[in-house]
Amino acid sequence: MSQSASQDNSAVGSVGVVESRRMRLYDADDPLRLDSGATLAPVDVEYETYGRLDAEAGNAVLICHALSGDAHAAGLHAAGDEKPGWWDTLIGPGKGFDTERYFVICANVLGGCKGTTGPQSVNPATGKPYGLDFPVVTIHDMVTVQKRLIDRLGVRRLLTVCGGSMGGMQALEWSVSYPEAVRSAIPVASTYRTSPQSIALNEVGRQAILRDPNFRRGQYYDGAAPNAGLSLARMIGHITYLSDQSMHEKFGRDLRHRKAYGYDFEPEFAVQTYLHYHGERFTKRFDANSYLYITKAMDYFDLSQGYPSLRKSLARAAGCKFLFVSFSSDWLFPSYQTREAANALRNSGIDVTFVELQSDYGHDAFLLEVGEMTKIISAFLGYLGGVRP
Amino acid sequence: MSQSASQDNSAVGSVGVVESRRMRLYDADDPLRLDSGATLAPVDVEYETYGRLDAEAGNAVLICHALSGDAHAAGLHAAGDEKPGWWDTLIGPGKGFDTERYFVICANVLGGCKGTTGPQSVNPATGKPYGLDFPVVTIHDMVTVQKRLIDRLGVRRLLTVCGGSMGGMQALEWSVSYPEAVRSAIPVASTYRTSPQSIALNEVGRQAILRDPNFRRGQYYDGAAPNAGLSLARMIGHITYLSDQSMHEKFGRDLRHRKAYGYDFEPEFAVQTYLHYHGERFTKRFDANSYLYITKAMDYFDLSQGYPSLRKSLARAAGCKFLFVSFSSDWLFPSYQTREAANALRNSGIDVTFVELQSDYGHDAFLLEVGEMTKIISAFLGYLGGVRP
Repeated sequence: MSQSASQDNSAVGSVGVVESRRMRLYDADDPLRLDSGATLAPVDVEYETYGRLDAEAGNAVLICHALSGDAHAAGLHAAGDEKPGWWDTLIGPGKGFDTERYFVICANVLGGCKGTTGPQSVNPATGKPYGLDFPVVTIHDMVTVQKRLIDRLGVRRLLTVCGGSMGGMQALEWSVSYPEAVRSAIPVASTYRTSPQSIALNEVGRQAILRDPNFRRGQYYDGAAPNAGLSLARMIGHITYLSDQSMHEKFGRDLRHRKAYGYDFEPEFAVQTYLHYHGERFTKRFDANSYLYITKAMDYFDLSQGYPSLRKSLARAAGCKFLFVSFSSDWLFPSYQTREAANALRNSGIDVTFVELQSDYGHDAFLLEVGEMTKIISAFLGYLGGVRP
Repeated sequence: MSQSASQDNSAVGSVGVVESRRMRLYDADDPLRLDSGATLAPVDVEYETYGRLDAEAGNAVLICHALSGDAHAAGLHAAGDEKPGWWDTLIGPGKGFDTERYFVICANVLGGCKGTTGPQSVNPATGKPYGLDFPVVTIHDMVTVQKRLIDRLGVRRLLTVCGGSMGGMQALEWSVSYPEAVRSAIPVASTYRTSPQSIALNEVGRQAILRDPNFRRGQYYDGAAPNAGLSLARMIGHITYLSDQSMHEKFGRDLRHRKAYGYDFEPEFAVQTYLHYHGERFTKRFDANSYLYITKAMDYFDLSQGYPSLRKSLARAAGCKFLFVSFSSDWLFPSYQTREAANALRNSGIDVTFVELQSDYGHDAFLLEVGEMTKIISAFLGYLGGVRP
């Protein structure tokens, strides 16, 4: 396991300082039609791009983010930034998604809180933020918005679409909903349908928010936010992102600020202070309403939805090549779920590669196992024939 | 897998109508000295017994309950009761703990809310319920109270002490803290030290309670209780009691009251309505303060605590025979943790049997896999030489 591939390869680098852009994709004359039957307008999308689109527009890669991610996948927003984009280890010159070769796009999802239209956007009907009046959206709706974005960027067919966790759901959805527009898909640490255990965990997180007295039916933007609930939801999330093994290695039964048990209810075990810290920090960068909408979109995700069977759904992806990556200790989206999807596609005669990586990092491995992922993704992109389709 | 052994064996029956009794074990002149250094008085214990203590007092079995259990382990409190005691399938005439042969004792734990002194008991210093002024207790403290109870019942040495989950922690603690008073221990679906993952899950449950505005530092007994938080904690708990497999089998992605997605935040998947139902129901029978104290006692549980090493701790149990039972799909107290404890004891030359049962039920298997457990426990008790030591 290595946390960064950059030590191994002197050719790798950063995309440098980048900026997010915003584009209006739908307006009142041409609203977005959602799976729920509702329409939505206006719809703006926040996105970033790295590298250059080649003359044939054949080198475009779409990166899809997970629950708490955003459009800022690589580089820095300002020279002094403490942290680069969330998948900076994989995107850049000489990296897995080599920006010398590929034109990389990443967009904040519909329903998000990082620039793309979501529940904190202004509802044109009221002049106030939507809150719970925002319509429930699906992974398919998110992908529909992304499709229009790449159209506007002049990309008719993506070389690949890749993402981890909920990003992998989007990659799979692309292959079925817009098969003519994707040559390949790389779902990482993901699933083709959300399991009842995942739905259960998401529900507890949502209830933590919904039961926070500051939630006020999602209309909290002019006052105190439901941070107690949102941080609790994030604490639950963090437990599912780690593994039993990684928690033993990272925390054990260590006490953080004490030498002996305190016999009170203050956080004292290292694992407690870690969860409190990350829960609290999350409230400074994420919106509770978006947490509700995005987890709900995940719950609804079932690739067979809208088709007579999973097989019929997957048959639509006949022209797409797949690289699935899962991690041995990921219990949120376990390897067996990936294997089921890979087998179903193979049984339909579709070109599938499935790699299960050994890792103790749990679900978080998709952000950490950079060395192995770089090798696998580079090889797969090479197998696709490089940038010239 | 069978949910009841009663179909296989015509000799089995119920202990019938039983009643709980209460005994004062400590008072102001003779307070309970806790691991924290605090003292507690008075201390009452609620308990039940089934079967008869033989003349030599050699047939006594102590059953220890889990987080949300109580002293009512078998039989009915009234003829019309809907549900018998929580381990009625294992305790009764002809059952695993055959009440024709054994004198079975079960007591509500210290810190509980079912008759034994706990945070809702009256604090003699204020004349009001303790709330958060109740001292934090440990598994060792719980066992110390049980030791005094069996002394008062005329039992100098238990034939065995058995429990599932937190009950198994108590069984292990007995073997180390009072080795002269136990011939054997049967920890089921348990651990010898609580893992960081378990501590993390407990912490989230506690925070759900502590952040409920009705909690009011635990002084809610004269008003609205923190039921939103307590039910949320129970929902988290239920996720950990089931397994990924059992959730697939029990719920899948079924919708409960709807034929299609509702595109709102009402519970609609079967797994959601299940969690809501059990969360809500729990608030009618359990006290939020007890939930805090008992989960904290579990977090603190580490059999090596107070000894130079686990080996030194376990060496105290040299004269005790052990039967460990774990379940293959239990991810709250996974088999590997039981195996570690069993191996450590074996390496100290102690007589250990370890059985891992194949089950899809997850942690809940200790309440459900009655057929297999009956066979194993009966055989072990037979191996001990029956009721005559």
